[in-house]
Amino acid sequence: KHVLVLGGDGIGPEVTAAAEAVLRTLDERHGLAIAFEHALVGGACFDATGQFITDDTMRRAKAADAVLFGSEGGPKWDSLELTGPPEARSGLTRLRRELELFANLRPIRPFDAMLSHSTLKPEVVKGVDFIIVRELCSGIYFGEPRGIERKSDGLLHGFDTQDYSEPEIERIAHAAFALARSRRKKLTSVDKANVMESGILWRRTVTRIGERHYPEVRLDHLYVDNAAMQIIRDPRQFDVIVTDNLFGDILSDGSAMITGSLGMLPSAALGAPREDGRRPGLYEPVHGSAPDIAGKGLANPLGAILSAALLLTHGLGRPDLAGLVEKAVGRALDDGVCTPDLGGRAGTSQVTAAVIEALG
Amino acid sequence: KHVLVLGGDGIGPEVTAAAEAVLRTLDERHGLAIAFEHALVGGACFDATGQFITDDTMRRAKAADAVLFGSEGGPKWDSLELTGPPEARSGLTRLRRELELFANLRPIRPFDAMLSHSTLKPEVVKGVDFIIVRELCSGIYFGEPRGIERKSDGLLHGFDTQDYSEPEIERIAHAAFALARSRRKKLTSVDKANVMESGILWRRTVTRIGERHYPEVRLDHLYVDNAAMQIIRDPRQFDVIVTDNLFGDILSDGSAMITGSLGMLPSAALGAPREDGRRPGLYEPVHGSAPDIAGKGLANPLGAILSAALLLTHGLGRPDLAGLVEKAVGRALDDGVCTPDLGGRAGTSQVTAAVIEALG
Ligand SMILES: CC(C)[C@H](C(=O)O)[C@@H](O)C(=O)O
Ligand SMILES: CC(C)[C@H](C(=O)O)[C@@H](O)C(=O)O
Repeated sequence: KHVLVLGGDGIGPEVTAAAEAVLRTLDERHGLAIAFEHALVGGACFDATGQFITDDTMRRAKAADAVLFGSEGGPKWDSLELTGPPEARSGLTRLRRELELFANLRPIRPFDAMLSHSTLKPEVVKGVDFIIVRELCSGIYFGEPRGIERKSDGLLHGFDTQDYSEPEIERIAHAAFALARSRRKKLTSVDKANVMESGILWRRTVTRIGERHYPEVRLDHLYVDNAAMQIIRDPRQFDVIVTDNLFGDILSDGSAMITGSLGMLPSAALGAPREDGRRPGLYEPVHGSAPDIAGKGLANPLGAILSAALLLTHGLGRPDLAGLVEKAVGRALDDGVCTPDLGGRAGTSQVTAAVIEALG
Repeated sequence: KHVLVLGGDGIGPEVTAAAEAVLRTLDERHGLAIAFEHALVGGACFDATGQFITDDTMRRAKAADAVLFGSEGGPKWDSLELTGPPEARSGLTRLRRELELFANLRPIRPFDAMLSHSTLKPEVVKGVDFIIVRELCSGIYFGEPRGIERKSDGLLHGFDTQDYSEPEIERIAHAAFALARSRRKKLTSVDKANVMESGILWRRTVTRIGERHYPEVRLDHLYVDNAAMQIIRDPRQFDVIVTDNLFGDILSDGSAMITGSLGMLPSAALGAPREDGRRPGLYEPVHGSAPDIAGKGLANPLGAILSAALLLTHGLGRPDLAGLVEKAVGRALDDGVCTPDLGGRAGTSQVTAAVIEALG
């Protein structure tokens, strides 16, 4: 089994190293036969090669069973204000696009030990357990035409296109309905159909897929502004949320925050199952590159470690081992071993060691 | 002074009636010489005329000193799934567009008596005082081309265009900087410049306006996903936030919720000052038409009443009277007079009477 580790920028390499250590421990004990490979991505890669990801790394990512990703970017590269399609400005975006990782899963489920860290009241957050399924390969991130140009009115315009084809909506709808069916059977689809044509097609298509294929799943529709509000008002009402690339980006960061522990949240970006049954996937913590604490050994590795758990489930077919990792993380937290972002005094390596020890 | 009252749908007419009663009281005492006019808008207008707003009403809105708006829409008209430009599907959107009400101000400032209603911890919400300045006349709401069509790939596509011209960004930047200069001198501009070309032009233009005209205002930039998170993490960090039409829609509903009292939040939509110094404006509560409680006398009138306060400031040049209204609302709340959405037992008319009495 090939796992390609792309640490990236800032604290990325520190947290992927922690996740890799957890996977290596499980590998030794359970004979997973993982071969780890490593490559540069993001600003680190740009500085070395002039590209945010190289063609060679793209090839290796396509051949791998799973990609473990750290984080990308930082003020140094932001300030270049590069223009052009996002695939050319971000290794992560190129990976998502070229590997066709259209289904981004972001579970929002706070650990009990973390409840007091939320800015929301504990009684609002306790028991929250939902997953955002964000479309990741289309929408305004990739639509054409886009650019900054002087138009026929003589004025400079900046413009972007949001475009969804029917099959693009169908495949993300199937992914979300199938997930909801395996959980509490409730799906909330989020759009802005009162203003956007793509939202109208989104709503119609999701409704049709549900009626034809998933009659046992209850489907609701929310406008995105209302959804942003409901997530804060009563996050327990949600089971699975499906939405487009841009709205998913916004809502998932907002939702992440309600758990009070952005540093702990994992994500998976999945493609369609291949003929051999394997499903291409990229696994990464939701947090960013946090340049302010990079290299200090203070980064919270739990988002990356829990992403490795998603990798075990979706990339290596071992949900049993994923369960072990999640329990071990819970135990480390219950013992009070955590990094400063969670109010603790432990460093990255201590937290990682505590999780590995709790694996038993 | 002409004030056009457009109650609209659901609880809209109930809450504008309350706001009108407050304005009439002030008119009698302070000789404001307001002439109130009324017309249909929204679903109510659609049922009567086949249009969400008539040309005649548009003419009267343009001639008025201010428009007091209730709310628009409901499941009955949503379910028609009308397509076409939003101006044809919404009276409110046509008003915003044709009156060129490009600057939407949404103050987020919880009353002390309401702190316990937030799902956020009181210590996070106490002292929050910021204003979202949302661009309201452009962006993905109006960009062309848009539609649902079979394209050359043989597939059905839904597509929309986000388009901002440089002057459109300049005028909203001026409005936001001028406001920040009159407050705590901090402006946060929100975009998605790492993905969207319009975001790049937005960021550049806002930066340039600030450097040239408002050196005393501190300017920060946030990506919209991060902004959604920061608003929940630490809402006190903000003074004025400026953003585009779509992001403003999403962030302002999310922000509204942190105060725990959506029913109390007012808004103003302002155009450029006219030659005679008057500034066209539409004033409306942030809440929607709440069809479930319409006609029951239970609607919270405070969002509309506080919108009337914004009308006094921006439409009638009487910030002193606006201050009276805000104090009166605070006093009614301190006395525990409020509607069920705030945990009270009073109806719309009792709350309105309490505010009028507290006017002194
Ligand atoms: C870095 C950026 C392009 C990216 C996105 O917007 O998709 C990030 O915010 C994310 O959610 O992974
Ligand atoms: C009703 C809808 C078109 C409107 C918008 O999206 O602008 C509403 O959400 C608002 O914010 O006033």
